Amino acid sequence: MELSQLKKDINLEKMLDEIRVFAPATVANMICGFDILGFALDEPGDEVIMKRISTPGVVITEITGDDGRLPLDPEKNTVSACVQFLLHNLGLQHEVGVEIKLHKHMPIGSGLGSSAASTVAGLFAINALLGSPLSKEELLPYCVEGERLACGTGHADNVAPALFGGITLIRSTEPLDVISLPTPKELYAAVVFPQVDVPTRDARQLIKEKVLLKDAVTQWGNIAGLVAGLFKEDYDLIARSMHDVLIEPTRAILIPQFYEMKQIALEEGALSFGISGSGPSVVAVTRDRAIAENIKIRIQQHLNESEIESFGYVSSVNVEGPKVLN
Amino acid sequence: MELSQLKKDINLEKMLDEIRVFAPATVANMICGFDILGFALDEPGDEVIMKRISTPGVVITEITGDDGRLPLDPEKNTVSACVQFLLHNLGLQHEVGVEIKLHKHMPIGSGLGSSAASTVAGLFAINALLGSPLSKEELLPYCVEGERLACGTGHADNVAPALFGGITLIRSTEPLDVISLPTPKELYAAVVFPQVDVPTRDARQLIKEKVLLKDAVTQWGNIAGLVAGLFKEDYDLIARSMHDVLIEPTRAILIPQFYEMKQIALEEGALSFGISGSGPSVVAVTRDRAIAENIKIRIQQHLNESEIESFGYVSSVNVEGPKVLN
Repeated sequence: MELSQLKKDINLEKMLDEIRVFAPATVANMICGFDILGFALDEPGDEVIMKRISTPGVVITEITGDDGRLPLDPEKNTVSACVQFLLHNLGLQHEVGVEIKLHKHMPIGSGLGSSAASTVAGLFAINALLGSPLSKEELLPYCVEGERLACGTGHADNVAPALFGGITLIRSTEPLDVISLPTPKELYAAVVFPQVDVPTRDARQLIKEKVLLKDAVTQWGNIAGLVAGLFKEDYDLIARSMHDVLIEPTRAILIPQFYEMKQIALEEGALSFGISGSGPSVVAVTRDRAIAENIKIRIQQHLNESEIESFGYVSSVNVEGPKVLN
Repeated sequence: MELSQLKKDINLEKMLDEIRVFAPATVANMICGFDILGFALDEPGDEVIMKRISTPGVVITEITGDDGRLPLDPEKNTVSACVQFLLHNLGLQHEVGVEIKLHKHMPIGSGLGSSAASTVAGLFAINALLGSPLSKEELLPYCVEGERLACGTGHADNVAPALFGGITLIRSTEPLDVISLPTPKELYAAVVFPQVDVPTRDARQLIKEKVLLKDAVTQWGNIAGLVAGLFKEDYDLIARSMHDVLIEPTRAILIPQFYEMKQIALEEGALSFGISGSGPSVVAVTRDRAIAENIKIRIQQHLNESEIESFGYVSSVNVEGPKVLN
C-alpha cells in the first residue's frame, strides 16, 4: 500500500474506551454496473466491538458467525490488519492498543460484501474511538486495502457503499474517484443467498478478458440509463436499464436455479433481478417492500423444493453507512 | 423500415404554404459515450425551405453548400426520401406535394452530423407544414431511418440531439430509448473540422470488434461519471469523466495533428478534448465561451502552420433542437 503518513492532531486523553459499530452488507455491481456500482443494505451487516487496552497493538479476542473460517491472528485477519495499518500511518502504533470482537451477521463468501462490512466496521470504529480525525474520504483507501488483503484485488465496489451508504459510483480505481448517487426513496432489495460455494476468485476467473464492443455499448447504455434513472427517480427507466448482458450470462452458470429465480422475481414485479457482486447471492430490486418480501419468500420456497438451503433478507437501501450502536 | 401506418387527424385545408427550418449540427459520442451520447450545437446547422406544391410527391429543387455531392433525385436524397416515407405512412402520398430547398451550412463528412441535421430539418419542416401532428418522439424513428439511408446504419446519436436539442442518451437502439440529460448552463464547445476526408464507414471499420473488459469498465465508469456530472452540474467531474480509452486511440490515427490539437486544447483550459462523432472534426468542451474561442483560434493556427485547411465553430449547447426561421 502506498498510503502516506497521516498528520492528524489527536488527543489520546480524549480517546473513547469502547465502541460498538455496525457496517452494512452491500450489493456490488448493482446488476448492470460491473466493478463500478454498488449499494448498501440496512440489513444484514457486521458488528465490531472495539475496546481500548493498555498494551499497544491490535488483538482479536472473539469472532462469531464465521463458522471458524476467519483467522484470529491479528496479522492475518483483515480487520485487525487494516486497523493496525491505520494506527501505523497515524504514528500511533506504539501508543494505542485495541481489542476487537467481530460479530458476523451474514454469511462469508456470499457476494454480499462480507469482508467489506467487517473492514469498514473496524476502521470506522478505530476512527470513532480516536475522536473521528479522518473523514470518510480519508478512511476509504484503508477500506480498499482491506479488500486487497481479503480478496486479492483492491476493488471499492463493496467498501464504498458500505462506508458512504446509499448508491455509489466508482468512476475510477486509480486514482480512486467515488461519487455518491441519489437513492430513490422507494427502492427495496430482496436478497437471497443460496448456500452453494462460489469463491470471488473463481467467479472472476470465469469472466472473459475480452468482450464484444457491441455488448459493451449495450452495457454502458444501460449504465448511463440507470444513473439517469436514479437522478430522475424514474423507476421505469431504472427497470429498463438494470440488465447485465456481459457478466451475468457467465456467472449465472455457477448459481443453481438462477434463471428460475429470475423468472419468479420478474413475475412478482421486481424492477430487476441479478447477481449480487460475484454471487452466489441474488438480488431483486423492487419499488415496494411488500413485493420484495413476497419475492424473497417465493424464491426461498423454490430453492427449498430444489433442496438448496438459503438465507433471505429484505432491506431498504442503507443511506448512512456504518453507525455507532448503543 | 418497419414503421407502421400513422393514424393522425390532419386537416389539409389548414396546411401551411411554406416554412423555413433550421436544425443543428451535433457532436455524437460526447467524447466518452460511443454510440450512446450526443449533444446539439447552436451553430453550425442546416436549413430547409419547404413549400407546398399542387403536384403530389416530394421534389428537391436546390441544394447549396454541398459542392454538388448530394443527389437531387428525390428517391436518392435522404431528406426527400424520409419526407416521402413519412407522407406515405400518414396516407398522404397521393394528396400532398412539397418542394424542398436544402441549404447546407456545414461540411459533409465532417463528423458533425451533417446528414442528421438535414434529415431532422426536413422531417421537422413537413411536420410543421402539416400542423405538427407528430410529437418529436414520433418523428424520431423517421430521423433514424434517414441515418440508415445516409450512413448504412440507423444510429440515433446524431439525430436524437439534433431533434430534441441538448444532451441525449440513447440507452438502447432496439427498441429505441432516448433520454434527455440536463445541459449545464456554462458548457461550450469549440469545434474544428480539419479538411481531410474520413468517411464514417471507414472510421467504423477501423474499430475492433472486441475490446478488453478492463478498458470497457474504465469507459463505463467514465460514462456513468459524465451522466452524474451533468445532473450535478459538476464541471470537475465532467472533466474527469470525459475520456475515451477505447475508440479515440484507433480513430485518432486518421486525424492529422490530433494529439497536438489535444495538447493545445487542454493547455488552454478545455474540460475535455476528443473526436466529434467519427471525425475528422474534433471538439473541445469548455466551461466558458472565451476559452472555447481561444482554443478554436489556436488549433486553427496550428493546422494552418501544418498546411491543413479547416473550418472552426464556437457554440453553446443547443437546447431546443430544430426551429422555424422567419
